[in-house]
Amino acid sequence: MPTALIGGASGEWRIDRNEPVRGAALPAAGRLAVLEGAAAGDPRVAAAPAWLLRGVRSYERYVTRAEQAELTARSPALGRTEATRAALIPISKSAAWWAMAQDERRAIFEETSKHIATGLRYLPLVARRLYHGRDLGEPFDFLTWFEFASDGAPAFEELVASLRRTEEWAYVEREVDIRLSR
Amino acid sequence: MPTALIGGASGEWRIDRNEPVRGAALPAAGRLAVLEGAAAGDPRVAAAPAWLLRGVRSYERYVTRAEQAELTARSPALGRTEATRAALIPISKSAAWWAMAQDERRAIFEETSKHIATGLRYLPLVARRLYHGRDLGEPFDFLTWFEFASDGAPAFEELVASLRRTEEWAYVEREVDIRLSR
Repeated sequence: MPTALIGGASGEWRIDRNEPVRGAALPAAGRLAVLEGAAAGDPRVAAAPAWLLRGVRSYERYVTRAEQAELTARSPALGRTEATRAALIPISKSAAWWAMAQDERRAIFEETSKHIATGLRYLPLVARRLYHGRDLGEPFDFLTWFEFASDGAPAFEELVASLRRTEEWAYVEREVDIRLSR
Repeated sequence: MPTALIGGASGEWRIDRNEPVRGAALPAAGRLAVLEGAAAGDPRVAAAPAWLLRGVRSYERYVTRAEQAELTARSPALGRTEATRAALIPISKSAAWWAMAQDERRAIFEETSKHIATGLRYLPLVARRLYHGRDLGEPFDFLTWFEFASDGAPAFEELVASLRRTEEWAYVEREVDIRLSR
């Protein structure tokens, strides 16, 4: 079941910032609600949210067994009491990215861009969850959700800046950066 | 947009056989319709089809660049005049399959089970298209569609039998084998 991340007037998270990084922005909204298994028309969703993005947690597309073991061992759960900051970063990649074979995408993703290794450096400081939207026909291929304590904010900025400097990011066609607190 | 493969009273293809290979069967139906972008409730879909399966064409999950180039060069289009036979083989894989890392799945899929190499041996005889249903929450992870001329039927039986003998197939939890003609 897809998870819906809904910008509007209600929700556990306050939206502190909502900025387009590449491509079209998302409309302004005051709060964000995260609802499992919700879609437009769901009685739990406000009549007219500013936006409703959907994605599914799915299987790993790039990690090796060794990377998976390390990620599992070091990844904290979401919902830690001290994690009062969050970020939602929806991105879409170009047709050129999706037309590449698996080994070519993996080479750019990790061998060149060190996406997994970079994320690992910030564990367990920054908890992370990935939702996939591409096969659902959603406007964003991925919704990445991050949670951290307020003193983890500078480290999180480093993490985001590192990823945006990679070769992988040359294939990012649309990106929005949404920061939250609770 | 998902494609719907609909078993019922209408459609271009006559269903000649509909047998469960592993797990639950699909209800009997006389004909199959293939509709781009359709869902239950779509005016093009009969009021109560026997079943409606959905999937999306998506990006390649296992092929390398060299394999992709060979597949592209040798794969015929669907809809060849002489391709009067078809097969629809919906399958789902186990939780153990989906929990594996990418390199482990690739190793079983190709290095051990030769899924890509086996398919290549039957090109251009057997045209093939894969639809992904897993991220959509569909009952089948994959819907594979094959088309061939009537004199290609023995070769198609060989192809299917080869794949079912592989290590990969130990992870197939549900499989239905539907044969069609037009």
